[in-house]
Amino acid sequence: MNKEIPYKIYLEENELPRQWYNVRADMKNKPAPLLNPATLKPMTFEELRPVFCDELIRQELDDTTPYIDIPQEILDFYKMYRPSPLVRAYCLEKKLDTPAHIYYKFEGNNTSGSHKLNSAIAQAYYAKKQGLKGVTTETGAGQWGTALSMACAYLDLDCQVYMVKCSYEQKPFRREVMRTYGAKVTPSPSDTTQVGRKILAEHPGTSGSLGCAISEAVEAAAHQEGYRYVLGSVLNQVLLHQTIIGLETKTALDKYGIVPDMIIGCAGGGSNLGGLISPFMGEKLRGERDYRFIAVEPASCPSFTRGKFAYDYCDTGMVCPLAKMYTLGSGFIPSPSHAGGLRYHGMSSVLSQLYHDGLMEAVSVEQTSVFQAAEEFARVEGILPAPESSHAIKVAIDEALKCKETGEAKTIVFGLTGTGYFDMYAYEKFNNGEMTDYIPTDEDLKPGFAGLPHVE
Amino acid sequence: MNKEIPYKIYLEENELPRQWYNVRADMKNKPAPLLNPATLKPMTFEELRPVFCDELIRQELDDTTPYIDIPQEILDFYKMYRPSPLVRAYCLEKKLDTPAHIYYKFEGNNTSGSHKLNSAIAQAYYAKKQGLKGVTTETGAGQWGTALSMACAYLDLDCQVYMVKCSYEQKPFRREVMRTYGAKVTPSPSDTTQVGRKILAEHPGTSGSLGCAISEAVEAAAHQEGYRYVLGSVLNQVLLHQTIIGLETKTALDKYGIVPDMIIGCAGGGSNLGGLISPFMGEKLRGERDYRFIAVEPASCPSFTRGKFAYDYCDTGMVCPLAKMYTLGSGFIPSPSHAGGLRYHGMSSVLSQLYHDGLMEAVSVEQTSVFQAAEEFARVEGILPAPESSHAIKVAIDEALKCKETGEAKTIVFGLTGTGYFDMYAYEKFNNGEMTDYIPTDEDLKPGFAGLPHVE
Repeated sequence: MNKEIPYKIYLEENELPRQWYNVRADMKNKPAPLLNPATLKPMTFEELRPVFCDELIRQELDDTTPYIDIPQEILDFYKMYRPSPLVRAYCLEKKLDTPAHIYYKFEGNNTSGSHKLNSAIAQAYYAKKQGLKGVTTETGAGQWGTALSMACAYLDLDCQVYMVKCSYEQKPFRREVMRTYGAKVTPSPSDTTQVGRKILAEHPGTSGSLGCAISEAVEAAAHQEGYRYVLGSVLNQVLLHQTIIGLETKTALDKYGIVPDMIIGCAGGGSNLGGLISPFMGEKLRGERDYRFIAVEPASCPSFTRGKFAYDYCDTGMVCPLAKMYTLGSGFIPSPSHAGGLRYHGMSSVLSQLYHDGLMEAVSVEQTSVFQAAEEFARVEGILPAPESSHAIKVAIDEALKCKETGEAKTIVFGLTGTGYFDMYAYEKFNNGEMTDYIPTDEDLKPGFAGLPHVE
Repeated sequence: MNKEIPYKIYLEENELPRQWYNVRADMKNKPAPLLNPATLKPMTFEELRPVFCDELIRQELDDTTPYIDIPQEILDFYKMYRPSPLVRAYCLEKKLDTPAHIYYKFEGNNTSGSHKLNSAIAQAYYAKKQGLKGVTTETGAGQWGTALSMACAYLDLDCQVYMVKCSYEQKPFRREVMRTYGAKVTPSPSDTTQVGRKILAEHPGTSGSLGCAISEAVEAAAHQEGYRYVLGSVLNQVLLHQTIIGLETKTALDKYGIVPDMIIGCAGGGSNLGGLISPFMGEKLRGERDYRFIAVEPASCPSFTRGKFAYDYCDTGMVCPLAKMYTLGSGFIPSPSHAGGLRYHGMSSVLSQLYHDGLMEAVSVEQTSVFQAAEEFARVEGILPAPESSHAIKVAIDEALKCKETGEAKTIVFGLTGTGYFDMYAYEKFNNGEMTDYIPTDEDLKPGFAGLPHVE
């Protein structure tokens, strides 16, 4: 296996994965089930049907089938923008003067600018196959809404996006991309839903939150004939679809006989990180090989590192099922100084369980250092990274610099989830030296925790 | 050669071109030389040295060497984002229900968002090799300035960009990308140059133009020790570097035994079009094979289709050499309703000569129809195209629809030069139904023509 390793490892079309991998099948401690907030009993298939598509519910509840076939229509769509490249960061290594070998899996080479498209096309496909008219969703920074708009345009499916109001206003370009793909975009909270009107009445000046937009989108789906709600992260089904990232990464590494020592990903709801690490975590769970897995989250929204492992509401309006996860409480909203995504109060139940069982690590980083890493990376590797992705860059650089000290030639793989084209407000702040850091005090976290439901 | 054709044809790293192709070597009628505006004699190497880098002047003046080696350092940089994919537009073909086979060479998969990086790295490299401190340039829509900033950051070279004032104000995000890569960005006209101050005095409220920004950048280069001026289009050297596009395209097509009937590209200054068609044009010039070549330009800036083939100034301040080209006159400025780039008054001398000799065709299209094509393309092919690139899409769709009428399975290749992330103002206008078309009357064109210098 001494082939020279190219800058970018691309797979051939016939090397593309044809199945998603369901890591839950290999977990001894399964993630806790979603609970019905009224009965506190596990949500059944029938209870979930008014909100989610049938096939997606099956995937959500299935914690035993290890591999699930990717339908041909989804494979065809994947071929339009996949495989994504696994890049050897030769230039970054040289700049850092590190003996470490650094690789990144780049998911930004599609118009949505991120990995979100991997699950968007799957969810839209199952909705279409069920004969639905359309889907509703929420979007914060806008990557998920863009991805879903693209998938729906391709399948000729109606797409209604509730966009967090401050993003709607501060990111008009994101909104226009979605509109170009034919989506209807509504700033949230809005007066188009009961829960939106209620929130507006209670907080007239609110600029919205992800939890609130979720509540509106769920209500909108439930109240329209032929519509269902879809979500871009957190859920088991989303992690499942995102395993295309990890499966491609593993195939590319295997092709050149490369074995990573550690795999690093940013974590908001967990979809990218879960998708990237799943196939490797499977090996670890089955006792075949050991890896370090590092989740990186913002210090200003530290679900893993400072959250509680508990059942919590997934949304502000409390219309969704309860999920057991590392959470800051559904009432937690990151400081306005927090730029970019990774601002969800909770975390994937799958990743939460794995973290709880000591199978992965988590660190939190402050945003000024994240933008420093982003700029350093951009200047040598060319790609302008999304602020979210740059959390992973920061820790990859830190680890590579540790190797420089110890002289170890470790192999580091990280997920570069997307591009920062729509985040130039944040870059501008950084360029002007106006960016600030914020770490919530224990006192700041108390109200969120106080709002946790009392569930064993 | 009956391999099934994949969605995307990627070349292996060892299939990447290692030489640029200089189409002038195969032209019987060579493009007319640059003239010294004072003497009206061909510019010599020595006369060009205060403004341009030595090696680039050699490339500019060399119309006999057919292949020029690409230095290893440039090849290494190319590997970071090249090869670019040649995509079979299966989804667009299906949507149009056409028997035509459509391919596009996609140059948008790098942070500059366009093909401009191919020449930016070459020019920055030769500047660095000459021991210079930095380079100056102008940018309009901002693709070139971004590309040059990236190349200079990589090589640790100072980069000063004069950005057309209206773009500087309307595209703050473009500006911030350049700043993130360490460039100094000045709105033009500015008071940092003599020519800028002169233009400001004569037209105090001006929002600037490309021709004016060129004048400022040239002056800035000439007045700083260790600086030279670089340009993103029009020049022979730029076309040369951009042949990497056409060479990769040809290698990819040859791999699958595909022979295009026509090759379509948008044309502003001509760099993308020239780079794409050069290797194919070479075959045509040598009598080996015939192809149709179609240049597509905006109806609002119709250099090829309504311009004069004459010597003209390259810039507003008339500090540059004269070039013989299809031109609307250096005083021509497109209507403010014109969105996006492709707004240069002239055209590459190489392409002008080829067009004049009947070796290629040109058509002009109106922008509303261009955005319609862009939207149609985006919804089925995923990629959100730049307005410039969408000119080529429009004509590719037109040609594919002609095939539908005649039942011919022609093979169409077009250049998709970049992405539209920074053009959402224009898309917003289109989405809101507020976009208008503008075709200059013959009367409108008169003042530009009146300003042409009197040179035989």
